Amino acid sequence: MPILQVHLLKGRTADQKRQLVREVTEAVSRSLDVRPDQVRIILSEMDREDYAIAGTLVADRS
Amino acid sequence: MPILQVHLLKGRTADQKRQLVREVTEAVSRSLDVRPDQVRIILSEMDREDYAIAGTLVADRS
Amino acid sequence: MPILQVHLLKGRTADQKRQLVREVTEAVSRSLDVRPDQVRIILSEMDREDYAIAGTLVADRS
Amino acid sequence: MPILQVHLLKGRTADQKRQLVREVTEAVSRSLDVRPDQVRIILSEMDREDYAIAGTLVADRS
Amino acid sequence: MPILQVHLLKGRTADQKRQLVREVTEAVSRSLDVRPDQVRIILSEMDREDYAIAGTLVADRS
Amino acid sequence: MPILQVHLLKGRTADQKRQLVREVTEAVSRSLDVRPDQVRIILSEMDREDYAIAGTLVADRS
Repeated sequence: MPILQVHLLKGRTADQKRQLVREVTEAVSRSLDVRPDQVRIILSEMDREDYAIAGTLVADRS
Repeated sequence: MPILQVHLLKGRTADQKRQLVREVTEAVSRSLDVRPDQVRIILSEMDREDYAIAGTLVADRS
Repeated sequence: MPILQVHLLKGRTADQKRQLVREVTEAVSRSLDVRPDQVRIILSEMDREDYAIAGTLVADRS
Repeated sequence: MPILQVHLLKGRTADQKRQLVREVTEAVSRSLDVRPDQVRIILSEMDREDYAIAGTLVADRS
Repeated sequence: MPILQVHLLKGRTADQKRQLVREVTEAVSRSLDVRPDQVRIILSEMDREDYAIAGTLVADRS
Repeated sequence: MPILQVHLLKGRTADQKRQLVREVTEAVSRSLDVRPDQVRIILSEMDREDYAIAGTLVADRS
């Protein structure tokens, strides 16, 4: 505990992912008073064709 | 709000996805009395080897 | 298949939920060409203290 | 986008949740180069009887 | 790793949950060749009013 | 019902997946007293670059 799942659009670099998991883990650890090794993060990437806002695929939005 | 995640088998066309997110958004908007732009939909596609019913992978079912 | 999870704020009536699952099932059935009995929907309700936009709990937003 | 779901044990104060969503949103915004208002966070709380590690409910662990 | 989320209807006893997490952990450990302490299970319980099959809430099915 | 989602690292063989879904379904069926055909399992595979423990991507851990 805690376990986080992050839904994000494809296209981030490995370094962006490294920064993301490091900084989110620090934020969770500080605010929930848990050790970093208790924090697990799952990154679920999506194509722009697999995410919609207001009934329109992001791939179809200008 | 609301946020929907749809788990579905791979193989649908882009047009089927367009119809899906459009019509589901309309249904959510009507029934929950929210604006369409408040509705977000994540499509999580699965291989037939990654979904099982009754202990059998769909890929192995006739 | 398909399986949908709907994250929504608490406070809807049973009738709103009935309309939601009926109309979303019809939309999914039409667009993905599946039988209604193949569609399953999980409603995951949240308190306003358990959902945040732009770093602020919905409970704290005017 | 992005959308985060945080699974955590029940028992945190409203202030801990406020700090959590604020700091996690800042971390996501910095690392993925998105605006804070694009970040949504769902907090899914669990009873100690509904989370298990190594086959044992947390409620049963000393 | 692995992390499992089990969506189930409310109403099970603590002992049923104990058996569930014990036996599922053993099954995962055997088949994926991981140690039991690497397996985490989240139980997400639902009211019968929050789950629908074929467009009908389970609460409304005979 | 019940519906399980298993988050696991990529790299398992089809046979390991077959054993996993068969044995997990049996465990769920026994402990929750449901028929096997009521149990559905979604396998969500992840790259080692998309899972983090203690703020570090598994891909970066020795």
